[in-house]
Amino acid sequence: LSLCSCWALGLAAASGPPNILFLLMDDMGWGDLGAFGEPSKETPNLDQMASEGMLFLDFYTASPLCSPSRAALLTGRLPVRNGFYTTNAHARNAYTPQEIVGGIPDSELLLPELLKKAGYISKIIGKWHLGHRPQFHPLKHGFDEWFGSPNCHFGPFDNRALPNIPVYRDWEMIGRYYEDFQINLKTGEANLTQIYLQEALDFISKQQASQQPFFLYWAIDATHAPVYASKQFLGTSQRGLYGDAVREIDDSIGKILNHLQKLGISENTFVFFTSDNGAALISAPKQGGSNGPFLCGKQTTFEGGMREPAIAWWPGHIAAGGVSHQLGNVMDLFSTSLSLAGLQPPGDRQIDGIDLLPAILQGKLIDRPIFYYRGNEMMAVRVGLYKAHYWTWSNSWEEYSKGIDFCPGQNVSGVTTHTQEEHTTLPLLFHLGRDPGEKYPLSFASDEYQRTMERIAGLVQQHKASMVPGVPQLNVCDKAVMNWSPPGCEKLGKCLTPPKSDPKKCFWPH
Amino acid sequence: LSLCSCWALGLAAASGPPNILFLLMDDMGWGDLGAFGEPSKETPNLDQMASEGMLFLDFYTASPLCSPSRAALLTGRLPVRNGFYTTNAHARNAYTPQEIVGGIPDSELLLPELLKKAGYISKIIGKWHLGHRPQFHPLKHGFDEWFGSPNCHFGPFDNRALPNIPVYRDWEMIGRYYEDFQINLKTGEANLTQIYLQEALDFISKQQASQQPFFLYWAIDATHAPVYASKQFLGTSQRGLYGDAVREIDDSIGKILNHLQKLGISENTFVFFTSDNGAALISAPKQGGSNGPFLCGKQTTFEGGMREPAIAWWPGHIAAGGVSHQLGNVMDLFSTSLSLAGLQPPGDRQIDGIDLLPAILQGKLIDRPIFYYRGNEMMAVRVGLYKAHYWTWSNSWEEYSKGIDFCPGQNVSGVTTHTQEEHTTLPLLFHLGRDPGEKYPLSFASDEYQRTMERIAGLVQQHKASMVPGVPQLNVCDKAVMNWSPPGCEKLGKCLTPPKSDPKKCFWPH
Repeated sequence: LSLCSCWALGLAAASGPPNILFLLMDDMGWGDLGAFGEPSKETPNLDQMASEGMLFLDFYTASPLCSPSRAALLTGRLPVRNGFYTTNAHARNAYTPQEIVGGIPDSELLLPELLKKAGYISKIIGKWHLGHRPQFHPLKHGFDEWFGSPNCHFGPFDNRALPNIPVYRDWEMIGRYYEDFQINLKTGEANLTQIYLQEALDFISKQQASQQPFFLYWAIDATHAPVYASKQFLGTSQRGLYGDAVREIDDSIGKILNHLQKLGISENTFVFFTSDNGAALISAPKQGGSNGPFLCGKQTTFEGGMREPAIAWWPGHIAAGGVSHQLGNVMDLFSTSLSLAGLQPPGDRQIDGIDLLPAILQGKLIDRPIFYYRGNEMMAVRVGLYKAHYWTWSNSWEEYSKGIDFCPGQNVSGVTTHTQEEHTTLPLLFHLGRDPGEKYPLSFASDEYQRTMERIAGLVQQHKASMVPGVPQLNVCDKAVMNWSPPGCEKLGKCLTPPKSDPKKCFWPH
Repeated sequence: LSLCSCWALGLAAASGPPNILFLLMDDMGWGDLGAFGEPSKETPNLDQMASEGMLFLDFYTASPLCSPSRAALLTGRLPVRNGFYTTNAHARNAYTPQEIVGGIPDSELLLPELLKKAGYISKIIGKWHLGHRPQFHPLKHGFDEWFGSPNCHFGPFDNRALPNIPVYRDWEMIGRYYEDFQINLKTGEANLTQIYLQEALDFISKQQASQQPFFLYWAIDATHAPVYASKQFLGTSQRGLYGDAVREIDDSIGKILNHLQKLGISENTFVFFTSDNGAALISAPKQGGSNGPFLCGKQTTFEGGMREPAIAWWPGHIAAGGVSHQLGNVMDLFSTSLSLAGLQPPGDRQIDGIDLLPAILQGKLIDRPIFYYRGNEMMAVRVGLYKAHYWTWSNSWEEYSKGIDFCPGQNVSGVTTHTQEEHTTLPLLFHLGRDPGEKYPLSFASDEYQRTMERIAGLVQQHKASMVPGVPQLNVCDKAVMNWSPPGCEKLGKCLTPPKSDPKKCFWPH
């Protein structure tokens, strides 16, 4: 790694550090792209991006839910370290609905904060999801510009029990969803992706003109329920509304990459495409995507919840048509970006991401484990082609009986359990090469099991011994903290009166 | 269609008809190729073939089992017409084990018989599976050469209760599996794919030298259990032995295509790659492949049993990198080949295949239904993106209780049924674009259901009204007809004495 950092420093010195562009999808699954085997093959631009860049087949999120995944991406640290988890109940996914009191702690160092040292200007377009209260504002955590929202585009709300979610430009809100930014829940029509696209093109043009390196975090959300697409894309997909949204995103990404090329900066812009968690099968088939051959989806630590589509693109640097089996993680985007900028990762804290440049540029394979967390529990670990489940859970019988199903049409006995099953003394072990669908646990008595678990047990012990959990940020909810009166609301006459503060433990059923 | 035939006739007249090469896989699933999303992406040659040719995403077999599928491919007719089915029980898959009495009827016209009229020399390499008794020999049905076996490579047998399966060169046997052609069931080692590869290369060279057009039917079987690979490929795949077999096949196909190019005849050779039925999930994970995101596998009329990987390759004629959503079927290979040869399909019988050249060469989409049969029953039909199930069945409770599972880890209530469920009055309807995994039947009350079923019902009525089933060939079994004394056994001293004839109804549990 130190060799590589030196190399990256050399690169940065020679031609200035490259621009960095993350294309982060929302609830898009591993199986949603043509290049990953989606049977309608409707992503020509992403497939071309893959053919011009490098496809990562074994790339993971740090959490099967949005907020922790995004916090991990921007901090390079597991949610259990950066505070994006709950201790209200065991092994529960938690996130940042607008009643959440917590958010990204000041003590965390976010990628855009660090990139400032190398002269980067950073913009986030789309969903922030790291806390909506003033102290958590992205411009207080390193970003220079923002267009988008702090929360998901749920709604419409009545502005009495719940306020509609605000849309920000930089420091202040400029409107609210369903009021100033329409999403037609009946038709699925919304032009938000076009707005996010234009924001990206404009920012890139501006930065190119000013000759300052940029970090653009394009965190769009058209594939998160309620799924939406612009009029021109509605009804164009074999896949229905979800597919329309994917087609619009694919088209937009084509335009962004094309823009980089037209401006002559594609060879100086590192682009990485991935998703925040697996497809939300609970919203399928109309509002949810595909996890291809993998088990279950969003909310679970099975492959369907955690393995993500991923493409690295950097013409002139990344050889076209490459395929990597490097075990990667969204947290690696933090470390890799620092390396690209010629910066050292912070030395005062545990960073879980690794620098992927040796894998991306030299085709190396770095041996490293992937830890699968759900809230405060390490549910599983992947080492090489093996995955050991220490805990299994899809969701509770109570939730399941209400029709909430994270594994529709799938049922692997003893694996997709509806009670939290502990396997810490005898983990369920799968070989993901022979059995990517996690259907055939290895026999406990086999040599292969014994040999493999010996190796994994050591890594897990080491991981747990050195684990210092952060202060959990997702424990307390309070309706008083919702988006009643975001900054800028006065100018718009959109300030609402909050109810009396009544902090409570958040309830996380999953 | 008549226009196209004229066009094809023109082509044939101009430069002589092209060679025709079918690469038919055994039990390989839709999800087994990198280009179709297999997560280990270990098929670089097939992926390259796809990028140089046309990928078919909606291509089907005519039966979820080997023999009927192959009989359909070579006759262009549904198994229920050409006799490759049973009436011993309702909706049962039947095939040609060595105790089968029947085989391909003389009344059927096979592709190589017809291609003779256009001067083709035809060879089958690998598994015939259309009957092993003398009257069914491939050289009696149009082939000029054969290297391979009449049955699956099961064994080893004791040559008392059951004889080992013979391997033929042309008219006579040259040995038996497990005696002269080894398959090590413990290690999975067998060099058969290398032998089949060499046979293909030699035949192609010979035909090129003699300037006669050829039809080569490369029907290899390394991915059918017991799965095997040559020593140099053993242990090379992430996927285990099954993956080793796929890698060897991929490598071999690369060599065959390369050979065509080296000989300068690639632009005069139409190559089509597909499989006989879906992956045998019952043999997974060690001996079975992947059907990607589709439901269930071999033996079933769900997408996993019927949808096949498919690639057309013909440099200089097929535009590189094409993707087609044409609904295709192995029976179309019959009709397409006749068109390529400038021949008319037989006018005295119903042909179910269609000429795919307009789809392959001009990107047209021909509207046609796909019928899914299991034995004597039309189980389902696909029209456009819709699929209607008239009958559902995975397998019986009795079989399932023995551990025979055609849908491991999958369970779609009311769909993957273990009793034969009739839905003829109210078919289960799926939209395969939104729901390729057949998990969400449309509401019977919906407009979409009503509208769609009206259209489908008409097509089904038409299909059933004009259906004249052939004489079923797969009803009678007799141990006396097994491969005791195949032609050529005398020379080798390998003749065995058959038991007394005792014909019985074959038992088909699936």
